[in-house]
Amino acid sequence: VAGFARVEPELVRALEAALGAANVTTDRAVLEPLGRDETEDLHGWPEVACFPATTEEVSAVLRLANEANVPIVPRAAGSGLSGGAVPVHGGIVLSVKRLDRILEIDEENLIATVEPGVITEKLQQAVEEKGLFYPPDPASKSWCNLGGNVAENAGGPRCVKYGVTKDYVLGLEAVLPSGEVVKTGGKLRKDVTGYDLTRLLVGSEGTLAFLTKIILELVPYPQERRTLMAPFASVREAAAAVARVFQARVTPCACELLTKAAIAAAETRIGPGFPPEVSGAEACLLLEVDGSDADALEKDFLRVGEACLAAGAQDVLVAQSPERARELWRIRRTVGEAVKRLCRYRELDVAVPRSRVPDALDAVDSVLGPLGIRHISYGHAGDGNLHVNILKDALPDAEWTEKLPRACAAIIEKVVALGGTISGEHGIGLVQKDLMPLQLGAAELRLMREIKRVFDPRGIMNPGKLLPDGEGRLIARDLTRRIC
Amino acid sequence: VAGFARVEPELVRALEAALGAANVTTDRAVLEPLGRDETEDLHGWPEVACFPATTEEVSAVLRLANEANVPIVPRAAGSGLSGGAVPVHGGIVLSVKRLDRILEIDEENLIATVEPGVITEKLQQAVEEKGLFYPPDPASKSWCNLGGNVAENAGGPRCVKYGVTKDYVLGLEAVLPSGEVVKTGGKLRKDVTGYDLTRLLVGSEGTLAFLTKIILELVPYPQERRTLMAPFASVREAAAAVARVFQARVTPCACELLTKAAIAAAETRIGPGFPPEVSGAEACLLLEVDGSDADALEKDFLRVGEACLAAGAQDVLVAQSPERARELWRIRRTVGEAVKRLCRYRELDVAVPRSRVPDALDAVDSVLGPLGIRHISYGHAGDGNLHVNILKDALPDAEWTEKLPRACAAIIEKVVALGGTISGEHGIGLVQKDLMPLQLGAAELRLMREIKRVFDPRGIMNPGKLLPDGEGRLIARDLTRRIC
Repeated sequence: VAGFARVEPELVRALEAALGAANVTTDRAVLEPLGRDETEDLHGWPEVACFPATTEEVSAVLRLANEANVPIVPRAAGSGLSGGAVPVHGGIVLSVKRLDRILEIDEENLIATVEPGVITEKLQQAVEEKGLFYPPDPASKSWCNLGGNVAENAGGPRCVKYGVTKDYVLGLEAVLPSGEVVKTGGKLRKDVTGYDLTRLLVGSEGTLAFLTKIILELVPYPQERRTLMAPFASVREAAAAVARVFQARVTPCACELLTKAAIAAAETRIGPGFPPEVSGAEACLLLEVDGSDADALEKDFLRVGEACLAAGAQDVLVAQSPERARELWRIRRTVGEAVKRLCRYRELDVAVPRSRVPDALDAVDSVLGPLGIRHISYGHAGDGNLHVNILKDALPDAEWTEKLPRACAAIIEKVVALGGTISGEHGIGLVQKDLMPLQLGAAELRLMREIKRVFDPRGIMNPGKLLPDGEGRLIARDLTRRIC
Repeated sequence: VAGFARVEPELVRALEAALGAANVTTDRAVLEPLGRDETEDLHGWPEVACFPATTEEVSAVLRLANEANVPIVPRAAGSGLSGGAVPVHGGIVLSVKRLDRILEIDEENLIATVEPGVITEKLQQAVEEKGLFYPPDPASKSWCNLGGNVAENAGGPRCVKYGVTKDYVLGLEAVLPSGEVVKTGGKLRKDVTGYDLTRLLVGSEGTLAFLTKIILELVPYPQERRTLMAPFASVREAAAAVARVFQARVTPCACELLTKAAIAAAETRIGPGFPPEVSGAEACLLLEVDGSDADALEKDFLRVGEACLAAGAQDVLVAQSPERARELWRIRRTVGEAVKRLCRYRELDVAVPRSRVPDALDAVDSVLGPLGIRHISYGHAGDGNLHVNILKDALPDAEWTEKLPRACAAIIEKVVALGGTISGEHGIGLVQKDLMPLQLGAAELRLMREIKRVFDPRGIMNPGKLLPDGEGRLIARDLTRRIC
């Protein structure tokens, strides 16, 4: 990784010749926002930004960068939460901005073909008009891009029923650093011809290749939907309700947990109108079921409500209208924003087997409690994916910088002991890569490093991401910190 | 690949020391059936067979083989249809036979953990007793092994609704040729920590590593089921019915197509009792819907029936009882067996976008018709996966040997032009590897070759499979042919 070249003026001229001068820029006002994503505390400076509009242009940029030994940082909307789009080694930010067409919605085969710069919700709206559904729903769906979703294997609340992004990617067109264009999969629900390069590229965080086309499976749009929120006197009771829902053989399309601190953070943001039944609860669940048959759904919904009550819910707030459902969702959706405005923080994105969610929260408490550090935790209880926001509060900078990495490592060690993983849906990127050896052994890491080398022998694709390389701390020092 | 060592007596002694003498054999009566799978016309001779019972024993065998430069052929039940288990370079057949435990059915998390030698149907029965469902249902489910299913990414009729094997594999334990044990994924529905080694191993046909543990997702068992069969005057009308079913936003759990020749083959086998409504039809569909709510399912079922009639079905045979449903399924299930008993044949396993099924059958006709070669075709119309059985009939051996490879290549070229793939569910193995360059470009094949090298630097894992190596024809010549 050491020893990348700088972007020399002649490389800029060659990029301009390939893309047109209007689509290559070294303007620092343009470059500055391209140096960050939605991850806390991180900024890096790219040297140049490129905006290709075709696969051929992408190929030209990659070939030039590879020959010049200059890093490429693929960039979609920049909504990532693991620093994956931060250009830590400078180089070229390669944007999907002009690769933003929905190429086809194939109603006969229930398959969409898109370019990577399409906004997730834009595709969802386009297919919903045809009675179809693209389920993955990361929190940033209104502005994130499908290319980023595929690169990060994005999740979201609905994934508990519908699966994550990888479950919808049937095929890809991607450009290797050599400039070669590879095609994987196709408009095919079954395809066992060779190794599954599609799934290898999904979630590879821009470290293997640059995606130029994405073939996505669609499903019928579920016309009916029922939502409830239930407060509980403890996280364990809420978790017991989740278990009872699945024991009743209902698969909800959302099964979200808020802990007491998350409820309080949401209440502070929402203010008047926050449901008094939920205020002050130790935990609450947001549960939703969907389907195409209203009567069948109503039965499932009753089972969900009964499961909550049987597990000790203090109340069950049933949304009697779509507006009311949106209000309940607002409570869940506002937590992330609330945390952002509170103070400096570090978000962990652990996942554990569903039944171990209370144990995972206990583990977090057991590490942070003695340090006197607060956390606001919430997440996708149905698939065991927790967003643990560790708060700096009034902790002095030096203490935060000293304690935080050790606390994160201690939490991850406990999560791994519970059968869990470092990241459920945010990715490894920059901020979690040093944690990788806590979960993966030397053999697994060696395989990943060598797979990276197969695709990207010179290591120019999004360097410094996904794989631990001992440089993590060094890089972090170079990054400007966002003041809060 | 050239230059493997033979299995020397001292290697056999070392294997015996590692596994116990009872679990290592060079007895030709034992080795003979381990030289074939269910693929037509193929047999090879292993030099020794090993039956390990633990991961440690597997590791010991692989380490010894790797050091001695001796091929390893992983073997599950031997139900494969692409020659994947045929030991074309001799060496060690490494059997999953004693790795046959269901380690856990975790009802709380809806996850099963199994060893690779568990019979697929045995797991299905065990989880059904708990109201759970493991959907993938290859035709051989009553005797095939989950390890083989994972290695081949097996499919089956239900995959049109439920997805294929890879959609259920959450994690793996696997042993590399070096003897190192790797663990991928876990009891986790969301996990984005590093590259997706799990999905890379699924469908890798034993060419990368030997699987020792498999973590499988389960879903609630669908209690209700409705089945119909509909004959049509043409394949295009049957395909139109399939399109109408999906347009009605119903996702059937089986959507099987039989062409005229397949219907005739089934009728010959079944004899009296074959439904006269189907006899002589140009095509027929077997359609099934399942779910947990009987009323909702009935509505879906009516929509399916209406779709068939609207597309011109000559009749709709509704199964009024589980026994009648089994009779309808028998028609579909008997075709494969009927073909086997008819004469020598070569089975292609192409898949195309669902809407292109009639075009794919036309393409097969356009190639085989002028050669005077018959085919019996049927398959999973819902996911565009067709089993094209090319019949030798009375064609002289020399002519068959000359015409068949060219005919297969011509069909695959046309299938690829339709956006299709060489194999939907049978795998590439030995018999399809020479076709790979018709679908994949040099860059894709290079990536696959180099990925193979990352896992298996000496190339001992199931050599001669999955990747074209120019040796295909040479190997084929060495194989005994089954006389028919």
